[in-house]
Amino acid sequence: MAQFLKVKTPDEVLSILNGIQPLPPEPVSLALACGRRFASDITAAEQAPHFARATMDGYAVRARDTFGASESLPALLERSGEVIMGEAPARPVAPGKAVEIPTGGMLPEGADAVVMVEYTSVLDNTAIEITRPVAPGENVLKAGEDIALGETLFRKGAMLRPQDIGVLAALGIVEVEVFRTPRVALISTGNEIVPVETRRLAPGKVRDINNVSLAAQIKSAGARVGVQQRVSDRLEDLVSACKEALIDHDMIVLSGGSSVGVWDYTTQVLAGLPESELLVHGVAIRPGKPTILGRTGKTLFWGLPGQPVSALITCQAFVLPSLRKLQGMMETEPVYARTLKAILNRQLPSVHGRTDYMPVALSRGSGGVMEASPIFGKSGAINILARADGYVVIAQHVEGLDCGAEVSVFLF
Amino acid sequence: MAQFLKVKTPDEVLSILNGIQPLPPEPVSLALACGRRFASDITAAEQAPHFARATMDGYAVRARDTFGASESLPALLERSGEVIMGEAPARPVAPGKAVEIPTGGMLPEGADAVVMVEYTSVLDNTAIEITRPVAPGENVLKAGEDIALGETLFRKGAMLRPQDIGVLAALGIVEVEVFRTPRVALISTGNEIVPVETRRLAPGKVRDINNVSLAAQIKSAGARVGVQQRVSDRLEDLVSACKEALIDHDMIVLSGGSSVGVWDYTTQVLAGLPESELLVHGVAIRPGKPTILGRTGKTLFWGLPGQPVSALITCQAFVLPSLRKLQGMMETEPVYARTLKAILNRQLPSVHGRTDYMPVALSRGSGGVMEASPIFGKSGAINILARADGYVVIAQHVEGLDCGAEVSVFLF
Repeated sequence: MAQFLKVKTPDEVLSILNGIQPLPPEPVSLALACGRRFASDITAAEQAPHFARATMDGYAVRARDTFGASESLPALLERSGEVIMGEAPARPVAPGKAVEIPTGGMLPEGADAVVMVEYTSVLDNTAIEITRPVAPGENVLKAGEDIALGETLFRKGAMLRPQDIGVLAALGIVEVEVFRTPRVALISTGNEIVPVETRRLAPGKVRDINNVSLAAQIKSAGARVGVQQRVSDRLEDLVSACKEALIDHDMIVLSGGSSVGVWDYTTQVLAGLPESELLVHGVAIRPGKPTILGRTGKTLFWGLPGQPVSALITCQAFVLPSLRKLQGMMETEPVYARTLKAILNRQLPSVHGRTDYMPVALSRGSGGVMEASPIFGKSGAINILARADGYVVIAQHVEGLDCGAEVSVFLF
Repeated sequence: MAQFLKVKTPDEVLSILNGIQPLPPEPVSLALACGRRFASDITAAEQAPHFARATMDGYAVRARDTFGASESLPALLERSGEVIMGEAPARPVAPGKAVEIPTGGMLPEGADAVVMVEYTSVLDNTAIEITRPVAPGENVLKAGEDIALGETLFRKGAMLRPQDIGVLAALGIVEVEVFRTPRVALISTGNEIVPVETRRLAPGKVRDINNVSLAAQIKSAGARVGVQQRVSDRLEDLVSACKEALIDHDMIVLSGGSSVGVWDYTTQVLAGLPESELLVHGVAIRPGKPTILGRTGKTLFWGLPGQPVSALITCQAFVLPSLRKLQGMMETEPVYARTLKAILNRQLPSVHGRTDYMPVALSRGSGGVMEASPIFGKSGAINILARADGYVVIAQHVEGLDCGAEVSVFLF
């Protein structure tokens, strides 16, 4: 039956991925929240700063007392103590007076501006000259001027970055609701694969690359790798390994079998799991055509080609986006942080009707222009990916790209 | 004395950072090596694959037996068993014979090419027709064609990515020498700061933002945060906290005091540490001028402004590069993964003689062009950074940038 199912385009697959719902929320302490995604909008329950602060070292004054001041005709103000950092000012600023204040110090009552120390000169213990006027509010961060009470600070699905942690810390938020981190079971299979630590390879055998390289990719997308095992390619062994993984994983990634026969084999594994549904049976891409996506209950099931290059590319192109969706990524999130424009420095042939993922190396060409050099090589040579900085996608209905064309490079 | 030291330009600081030597190497298991940097060049101690492999499903043949084959005049070959995945072929391919082979299967002796299954048709149990000729080597990955024996695979200082892990796994390398991860002590000080978990702030007090936001930045650069504490701003307390941190940290980051007085105070702390040397006393940037870099023995010492926005920007611009150098980053490493070209969508004024770091938000403008919108706001407002995707650097001798100018955005 399976072989009659239509192979999907990458866009069709990505649109299926867009429908993936995030995992349930969980609380996480602020110190561990970086890289996680907000499970709800965050509004400010208090304002910041909660008092007017000086943003410069200088003197807190009433702005009107400095109007008209100049180098030639300075304003003369009476010195009236100083504001101690971290403490409430001892007394208000009366008309005609100036109180010394450090950056971050609390503006005394009565004052509405700070004159920078550079525009003052101390005459004696009691008086200073001001050589430039200040406007009300100048060099002052008013109460609530950074963060207003009730302001929406973050949207559900946004990823927490260090500065966002800083904003939450400013408000005393020490715990935040984020979407749960996906836990992924990695299963590799194939009669040809042996443990990575195997010293001498027997003829026909290769080491199990996928279990380590896919694990590194999955962790780089913020997910956790749980079970990680090699299973014999007997159907019942694979089904039972997957069933076991269902207990405490949100996703199963089964890699193995790039050939036509094994491809159908992976769908048989999926079919052997409870409440299973086949969503994608092959993608019209190279490399990576025999990629399978399904569900078993609430667990996502990926069948990736066993060939390591295909597995790495399809993981990057499809598995990682599905992990980001589980973590709450919004459909509208820009991908600019993971792509870059470059000029193709040679022609890139392609076949109509299939989307090609071509590894490229980046370098600065003449005039500082970013150039992308395609890395050609035999199918299956993993060393090609080690020499690449990213890949270029040649869309299905394009018959290659010209030298000099501007391309988007998806960075590894 | 200190106030007579010349404030440095950002380029002068970065050139000092370029002289930082990496920490000593240490072995790490492959599973934990992603994101670390090679402590030496890696050459291939074996070849990969170690046997010729089919890159397509089909039939292993002698290429000459297919010469001249076409749809109208197919070559007729005798079927001679099949190659089992992961096993040495039972017998060689004799002239006029074809052996079924799966992708990744070991090419039998005698064969030099694989005919794709699409260009064959099985006549009966003993014969197949070939409708397209193959050249020698076609659809075959020869022994050593992916990775040649003795080939230099990776350069010292390169960061390990998932595909690099894959290449090492292919060769059975289960442990790799990488530069040690820097351990950073974070100390915040200031009479005004109180723990983040403080419920109600007293007048003049603010929460300790830096300890959590700087920690998140430092971890994002692959370093570890060790000691993380708030210390009173008494000189002897700070010196003793720093001395304690010297025992098992590679870097001390002291944040606190953005005002002129406290700036000198930080240099006094440095001066109180053993074998200390002041390398940078202030940088001609905004924000972040009162940034200090020194050494105490082998430990790097950063004094960052206490003001959270200045601390975040200077950490991003200087502390993180210094951490990458400690981890072995080479001077020649391109920064394209952390920058992006965009068009400024409004004018950006600046002051001659000072380098400005201006937060910007990114969006797709008309025609899909990436636009950078400067986020203006009062000095010290951390919420500005939460709305920003990165920053633009306006160089020292530039008096602002025009609307429509192409800029490099350093991504957060």
